[in-house]
Amino acid sequence: MTIVRSFATAFAALAATLAPVAQADTLIDNIQGISVDREGKVTRFTAMWIDDDGRVKQLLDRKDKRPKQTDFAVDGKGAYVIPGLIDSHLHMMGLGFAQLTLDLSDTQSLAEAQEKIRAYAARHPDRRWIVGGGWNQVSWGLGRFPTAAELDAAVPDRPVLLERVDGHAVWANSAAMAAAGITAKTANPAGGRIERIAGGKAPAGVFVDRATALFDTVVPAPRPEDRDLALAKAQELLLSKGVTAAADMGTKIEDWQSFRRAGDLGWLRMRIMSYASGTDAMALIGGPGPTPWLYKDKLRLNGVKLFLDGALGSRGAWLKQPYADDAGNTGLPLMTGAQLRNMMSRAALDKFQVAVHSIGDAANAEVLDAIAELSDTYKGDRRWRIEHAQIVSPADIARFGKYGIVASMQPTHQTSDRIMAEARLGPDRLAGAYAWRSIAAAGGHLAFGSDAPVEAPDAFAGIAAAISRTGPDGQPFGGWMPQEAITREAALAAYTSGGAWAGFAEGRFGELKPGEWADFVMVDRDPLMASPADIRATRVQETWVGGERVYSAK
Amino acid sequence: MTIVRSFATAFAALAATLAPVAQADTLIDNIQGISVDREGKVTRFTAMWIDDDGRVKQLLDRKDKRPKQTDFAVDGKGAYVIPGLIDSHLHMMGLGFAQLTLDLSDTQSLAEAQEKIRAYAARHPDRRWIVGGGWNQVSWGLGRFPTAAELDAAVPDRPVLLERVDGHAVWANSAAMAAAGITAKTANPAGGRIERIAGGKAPAGVFVDRATALFDTVVPAPRPEDRDLALAKAQELLLSKGVTAAADMGTKIEDWQSFRRAGDLGWLRMRIMSYASGTDAMALIGGPGPTPWLYKDKLRLNGVKLFLDGALGSRGAWLKQPYADDAGNTGLPLMTGAQLRNMMSRAALDKFQVAVHSIGDAANAEVLDAIAELSDTYKGDRRWRIEHAQIVSPADIARFGKYGIVASMQPTHQTSDRIMAEARLGPDRLAGAYAWRSIAAAGGHLAFGSDAPVEAPDAFAGIAAAISRTGPDGQPFGGWMPQEAITREAALAAYTSGGAWAGFAEGRFGELKPGEWADFVMVDRDPLMASPADIRATRVQETWVGGERVYSAK
Repeated sequence: MTIVRSFATAFAALAATLAPVAQADTLIDNIQGISVDREGKVTRFTAMWIDDDGRVKQLLDRKDKRPKQTDFAVDGKGAYVIPGLIDSHLHMMGLGFAQLTLDLSDTQSLAEAQEKIRAYAARHPDRRWIVGGGWNQVSWGLGRFPTAAELDAAVPDRPVLLERVDGHAVWANSAAMAAAGITAKTANPAGGRIERIAGGKAPAGVFVDRATALFDTVVPAPRPEDRDLALAKAQELLLSKGVTAAADMGTKIEDWQSFRRAGDLGWLRMRIMSYASGTDAMALIGGPGPTPWLYKDKLRLNGVKLFLDGALGSRGAWLKQPYADDAGNTGLPLMTGAQLRNMMSRAALDKFQVAVHSIGDAANAEVLDAIAELSDTYKGDRRWRIEHAQIVSPADIARFGKYGIVASMQPTHQTSDRIMAEARLGPDRLAGAYAWRSIAAAGGHLAFGSDAPVEAPDAFAGIAAAISRTGPDGQPFGGWMPQEAITREAALAAYTSGGAWAGFAEGRFGELKPGEWADFVMVDRDPLMASPADIRATRVQETWVGGERVYSAK
Repeated sequence: MTIVRSFATAFAALAATLAPVAQADTLIDNIQGISVDREGKVTRFTAMWIDDDGRVKQLLDRKDKRPKQTDFAVDGKGAYVIPGLIDSHLHMMGLGFAQLTLDLSDTQSLAEAQEKIRAYAARHPDRRWIVGGGWNQVSWGLGRFPTAAELDAAVPDRPVLLERVDGHAVWANSAAMAAAGITAKTANPAGGRIERIAGGKAPAGVFVDRATALFDTVVPAPRPEDRDLALAKAQELLLSKGVTAAADMGTKIEDWQSFRRAGDLGWLRMRIMSYASGTDAMALIGGPGPTPWLYKDKLRLNGVKLFLDGALGSRGAWLKQPYADDAGNTGLPLMTGAQLRNMMSRAALDKFQVAVHSIGDAANAEVLDAIAELSDTYKGDRRWRIEHAQIVSPADIARFGKYGIVASMQPTHQTSDRIMAEARLGPDRLAGAYAWRSIAAAGGHLAFGSDAPVEAPDAFAGIAAAISRTGPDGQPFGGWMPQEAITREAALAAYTSGGAWAGFAEGRFGELKPGEWADFVMVDRDPLMASPADIRATRVQETWVGGERVYSAK
C-alpha cells in the first residue's frame, strides 16, 4: 500500500536482527519439561538433548545420565518447557498488516475510535488512503453499525477504509465510497450486502461479506516489500508469544511468494502450514498436489480454505432459523451446495486437504452433508477440516467423529462472543455453541487457534478460556456453559500435538519426543497446574524452533 | 490442456528416470578440454578435478600430477570437453509443449501440413481441441497465410488452433473461431491484426500478435502436471543437446511454479535464468527484486522480458520504412515509447534486469533511445538486454557498445530467415541485419541462443551459422553478408561465458575454471577446429551439470 511506503527501511533493520544462528548438538538441562500427545497423555522430563540438525535426540529424567559431551549446554534454571505452540487458524499477513496499519481493536466506544482515527490521519499526512481494522460495534455498545458520516467526522479529506474485527465487513467514509464509485444505485453483489441509510437507498457506510470487494480495485495494493515486512512482523509477534507453527488460512499467491522469500533468504523462523485462498490459488501454489515440506519442515501448502458463510457478529453466519435479534434474516451461504461440493472435489481429487469456514448451524450441517457424501469417493486419510464450527446443531455433532473431522476452533472467540452470541441466537439455541467438549467426546479432532488478527494470537489466553469458559475478567462466574470446558491436558494438546495432526505434521513437530524438531517454549509456570488467571499471565522467556533460539525476552 | 490428459502417467515414468545421482570428488581424465572466456581467450586441459560439491577444483595439463586419491575417476577416452552450452533465449514451456502437441515445423508444404494435421486428429479422437504449432507459410512456399477453410479441410469437426513457428500468429479453423465467438464484426484488438478474407471483413483464419489473445479463454489451459511434464521434456531434450543452462524468456507465474516444483522435488537438472513475462509477473515472482540463486545456482529470476514489436515473418516487426513487400505497412510497436520507459523504469528501480524483444530497426532504435535516457538514472551494472536485435540501423550499432548492451541473438534465425528477410526489407536495408560482428566490434556483448521452439535448441548449428553465415545446405556459397561472421572462439564464447555474463552468472558457470560449477559436455570433435558442416554433425556423448552426469548417449 502506498500507505506503507516507509516500510522498506524498517524491514532492512528488522532483517538484520534475523541473522542465522549456528546449530549444534545441545543439551537443555535443569528444566521442567512437559509434552502431551493427542490422547492427553503427558510426558515429563528434566533435560532435553537436541542433535545437530535441531531434532530431539533424547528426553532425560532427573536420574538419567547426561551425555558426556555436547557442543552447547543450556541451564534452564528450572524453567517450564512446553512444546512450541501451534495456532491452527490465523492470517499471517492480516496479523502483520494489523501492526502496520490503524488498529481499533482496543477501542471501547465509537467516540474513542473516531478520536484514534483522527489522530492517526494527522500523524500520517502522506498516506493517500487511511486503512486499518479491528473495530467492533458490539464492544462499543453501539447497537448498530457505524456510518460513513461518523467516519467523515473524523477524516473528511481522504478515503478511509476500516475492516471489522472479524474481517467480514468494512466501514468506509464518503471519500472511499466516492473513490469506489459507490452510489445509491449500486446493487448488492452476490453473497454481499450494502448497508443502506434507514428508509432510503443511499449506502450507509458498512459493506458486508462480498460487498467488501467493491473497494478491491481502488485501495492501493501492498507492495512485495510491504508484504515481507508484514510477514516479518507477524512472525516476530508470534515467536514472542511462543507460537512456533501456524496454519495460514486463506493464502494468496502473493502471500505464498512472501513465505518463499523468507525461506529462500533464511529468515523464515517459524513453521507455516498454508491453506490457499480458494481452488484457483490452490492449483497455482501447489500445482498437482500439496507441496513438499520445504525449508526443513518450515513451510507446506497443505490444502485449500473455502468459505461457506460469514460471521455471527455481522449476521453473515448462515443459520437454520432466523437471527433472534433480526427476524427474517438467516444469514447467507456464500455458495451453493453444488459449488461447495465441486470445490471440495476438485481439491480432494488432487489430495489437497480441505478446510471450510463454517460458523452457523446451517453452514455446519451443509459441510457435514458434503463431507458425508464425498467420503464415499475420497477415501483414506483426508482430515477434513471445519474452521470455527461455532454453532453446530447437537444432532450434527456425532458426525465429527463419524468422519474423523478436524474441528479447528478458537477458544477466545467463545469468551469474546458469548454476549453477542446470546443476542444473535437467543437462549434456546446455544446447546451446540463453541461445543469443544461435545465435539471431542464425539470423536472430532480438536485443533485450537486464535483467528489472529481477529483475536490476539495468545494461546495461553486460549488455554485459560478452554478450561474455564471464562474471560479475562473471570466472568461469568463458573463459566459459560461450563459443561463444554475441557481438561488442561486436552487444551494443551489442541494447541500442540492436535494442531500438528490437523496439518499432517505429526512426527515432525507438535510434541517433544525423539525424532521431532526441537520446537519449544520456556515459560515461567506450569499450564497443567496453574489457575486460569495464572495461565493468562504466563511469561514466555524463550522460544526455540528446530533447536535454535529464535526469541528471548531478555 | 484437456488434450494432454494422458500425460500424468508419462510424467511418473519420466520422473523415475530422474533419480538423484550421488556426488563425490571426481577426476575426469584423458580428455581434450576447452574453455573460453568472454574475450575469446582459450584454455586447454587434459583432465579436470571436480570437488564433492560439483565445482571445478583444478584443471590439469598432460604433464600435471594427478591427485593421489579421488572418489571417482572417469576415463574420457580422448573426448573433447567443452563448457556446458548456454542458450540465452528460449521458451522452456513452449519447447516442452511443442513436443507434446502437434508439431508442423518439419512440413514443407501446406498439403503436407494438412495431411499431418488430419492424421494427428485421427490419432487423438479424445482431444476436444487440436493444438500445436511450428507452421511457416514461407517454408511452404505459399506466398500468403493459410486460411481457416484450408484447416477445415483437414479437421472440420473440432476446434484446431496452431501457432506460427515464431509464436507471433495463430491459424484457426472455423470451429475454433466459432468457439471464440469471432465473426466479421470482431475488431482488431490493440496491437493485433485479424487477417480478413480478400475484399471482405470475414476473418481469414490467421490472427497476428495481440489478436492471438482472442482464443485465450477458450483453449483449455494446461494443468499443472502437464506443465511439469513439458518442463521435464524440455529439460531432457536440452541436456541431450549439451545445453546446461538457458534463459527462459517470458516466464509466467505458472511456469515459475513448475520450475520451483522441479527444484523442490530434486529433478531440476539444468540451470534456468528466468525473465518474467511483463512487469506484473516480475513483481509477483520476484517481489522486491530478483530472487536469490536457488537450488545450487539452478534457478534465478533475473528480470523481465518486454515485447516492443512482433516478428519479421508475420510483418509484425516495427520498421522505420514500410516493408519492401507490403507498401504502407511498417509493422506495429506493441506499446508507446512512454509505456516502454515506464515498464523499464519500474523494473530497473528494483534492480531487475530488463530484456526487450526488438526485431525491426524502428524498434531497436526506440529501445536504444530508452536505454540511453534511463542510463542517466539507473547507473551501475545493468546489462540491458536487447532480444533478437535482428534489424539495426548501422548508425545505431555503436550504441550497443556505449551502453554496454547485451545483444541476445540467434544465429540460426539468420540462416533460416535470410530469404524472407530479403523479401521484407529489399536489398538496400540489410546492412545492419543479424550484424553479430559489427555489434561485437562496437562493444556490444553477444549472447547466443535458439529461440526454441522457434528453432531447434542446437547450439552446434548456431556455432556453424555464426562462423559461416551459411545454412545446413551450405548455402549461400561463401556466406550471406559474410563480413558479419565471427570467429569460432567468439561463437563458442557467446554460447558459454558470454551467455553466463548476460545473465549475471559469471563466476558460477559458463567457463570451466576453478570455483565454477563443473557443467560440461563431452563431444566427439573440436568446435574450434572442425568445419561448419562438421560442427553441425557434432555428437553429444555426455552432459554433466554441477559435477553430475545428467545425460549419456549410451
